[in-house]
Amino acid sequence: MSSSRSESVLVIGTGLLGASIGLGLRSLGRDVLLEDTSPTARRLARDLGAGRPAAPNEPDPVLVVVAAPPDVAADVVVEALTRFPQAVVTDVASVKSTLTTAVSRAGADVERYVGGHPMAGRERSGAVAARPDLFVGRPWVLTPTVHTSEAAVHRVRALALDLGAVPAVLAPEDHDAAVARVSHVPQLAASLVAARLLDADDAAVSLSGQGLRDVTRIAASDPQLWVQILAGNPGPVAEVLRGLQHDLDVLVRSLERLAADPEALGARGDLATVLDAGVRGHARIPGKHGLASAPLEVVTVQVPDRPGEVSKMLAVMGEAGINLEDLRIEHVPGRLVGLAEISVLPAAREQLEQVLVEAGWTLAG
Amino acid sequence: MSSSRSESVLVIGTGLLGASIGLGLRSLGRDVLLEDTSPTARRLARDLGAGRPAAPNEPDPVLVVVAAPPDVAADVVVEALTRFPQAVVTDVASVKSTLTTAVSRAGADVERYVGGHPMAGRERSGAVAARPDLFVGRPWVLTPTVHTSEAAVHRVRALALDLGAVPAVLAPEDHDAAVARVSHVPQLAASLVAARLLDADDAAVSLSGQGLRDVTRIAASDPQLWVQILAGNPGPVAEVLRGLQHDLDVLVRSLERLAADPEALGARGDLATVLDAGVRGHARIPGKHGLASAPLEVVTVQVPDRPGEVSKMLAVMGEAGINLEDLRIEHVPGRLVGLAEISVLPAAREQLEQVLVEAGWTLAG
Repeated sequence: MSSSRSESVLVIGTGLLGASIGLGLRSLGRDVLLEDTSPTARRLARDLGAGRPAAPNEPDPVLVVVAAPPDVAADVVVEALTRFPQAVVTDVASVKSTLTTAVSRAGADVERYVGGHPMAGRERSGAVAARPDLFVGRPWVLTPTVHTSEAAVHRVRALALDLGAVPAVLAPEDHDAAVARVSHVPQLAASLVAARLLDADDAAVSLSGQGLRDVTRIAASDPQLWVQILAGNPGPVAEVLRGLQHDLDVLVRSLERLAADPEALGARGDLATVLDAGVRGHARIPGKHGLASAPLEVVTVQVPDRPGEVSKMLAVMGEAGINLEDLRIEHVPGRLVGLAEISVLPAAREQLEQVLVEAGWTLAG
Repeated sequence: MSSSRSESVLVIGTGLLGASIGLGLRSLGRDVLLEDTSPTARRLARDLGAGRPAAPNEPDPVLVVVAAPPDVAADVVVEALTRFPQAVVTDVASVKSTLTTAVSRAGADVERYVGGHPMAGRERSGAVAARPDLFVGRPWVLTPTVHTSEAAVHRVRALALDLGAVPAVLAPEDHDAAVARVSHVPQLAASLVAARLLDADDAAVSLSGQGLRDVTRIAASDPQLWVQILAGNPGPVAEVLRGLQHDLDVLVRSLERLAADPEALGARGDLATVLDAGVRGHARIPGKHGLASAPLEVVTVQVPDRPGEVSKMLAVMGEAGINLEDLRIEHVPGRLVGLAEISVLPAAREQLEQVLVEAGWTLAG
């Protein structure tokens, strides 16, 4: 691949994703050209080190990455396929079907187009938030069609690998159905639960615990961005939501029957069926290193709320050779102490409790 | 209060909560009597140090804590009020209205009864999972009525404080409405989202990220326990779910309109309204130390997946005097490296990035 290193990659759209791709490729010594409809945005990305503007009579790039906003991505892809008749063109939009169809309908040379979706993001947007390592370890879905050439797929896969991502190939419609389930519907569910707190009184909200915090964390995301994403994938999201709607109706009916008659026949069974489906669905989420999630055990420790305390505790673990699988810190209302919930493999639990107590830490429930 | 220290507390029901209360009181040197309909369960709690069985002709306890299963709690409370005509009686059931009404209707001496709900639990049940510190820093809701005496409330509040909990007083129906919003409905939403993964294919599930993991974490809870909890609070949970149902209908309708016509008038606005309500509801969840949640900034660091690496990193933070607000560890599919997401106050972000890079750590996006 050494010959391709001397050939340029053009990034069109220098927001968070485009600028991060530029930074990542520049860190590998690649030549990156930057375009953006906003000269200010392009200059910012250049100043941050994400690439350079094209020179007059610049040779065509070998690869064009369209990182423009979703609503213009299709047009920009079609234009790029026309402008650069030898280049492979890819994009980074989070919904793929509509885009792929639009490119195909425009009569563009779809052999050289590979839809892409790097599943990385941040709570901030724009080139200022860009990072060369944004994609490390994240899935990067490629959505070629029967018309896409092997060589084009190979080039975009190489891009994903170069940036540290884990490439996966899916048909555009399968990608959209997948993200509806694992990303778009969870986002909406978080918003729906959080919205229930709007008319709660302060006393109610003060009883919030870690469960509510986890369920609603992503509800803080940018509504405008999410409207664009959802509007790009309305069919698959609506389909998953209709299944959710059906189960929700079962729950509401069962609860209304129980409210009228605590012994209502079958109502408890209907509740249990939905809850049990949740347990089994949850068990399908892959855990560590792509394996099915191992059941972890949680040890809870009281931690004074000052710098260095958690690291002291984890140092005790490290010295004992116990691997930390996860850690959550829960702050205690009205007290300057927190609870650290340390997740470890079940086999390590007993030893962990022992070494922590020996080192003077107080276990909590 | 020194005189009360020589007087006994009777705990009826020696499961997780009852045994934890026993252990906590014993660690303070209190005399704890244990009862359970199962002699095996009672003996186990005794052997674990949670208290002792009553002797023949034992003097009456000053306080009775009913920690029996929800479906028998009312009967046990009424019986305790009759058996011990001087004792204050409380319970630990997670739903309060029905119970309080049942106790009152039974004609018991409600002046001495204070409903209680320590908001603590574990992923495991039974006395073996009990801990003296189970309640430290957790809310413990008291639900007295107009009939409850001040002295009785005072005694149960003292119990909560002794066990390290943070007491809060709410009317029974306000408590039930509050937990419907902050606990019961989030639980159901997590189950509903997780259930959508049952008929997803493996490729779809492999795209799961931290958002989905957070939203569905509590979906792994025990369905049987949750059926009992929900069946005890059907009215308030159904009411909150009907609000959720309404918003969900708006989402489905908007998405179906967008699927039919990408320019459908008002559909995007309706999506934005629901998402925006989620943002504002989420902002009401109290954060650290009971204050409104401060906006935290996240720094993501690549961490080799072996014991002690995270603690080394946090030690660097501690030495720099930077306080860790939260930490999430995300494992990377197919790689022996993880991403640690360190949350800090915004003012500390820049310094954190600097000290980590200087110490040789690689920041990720």
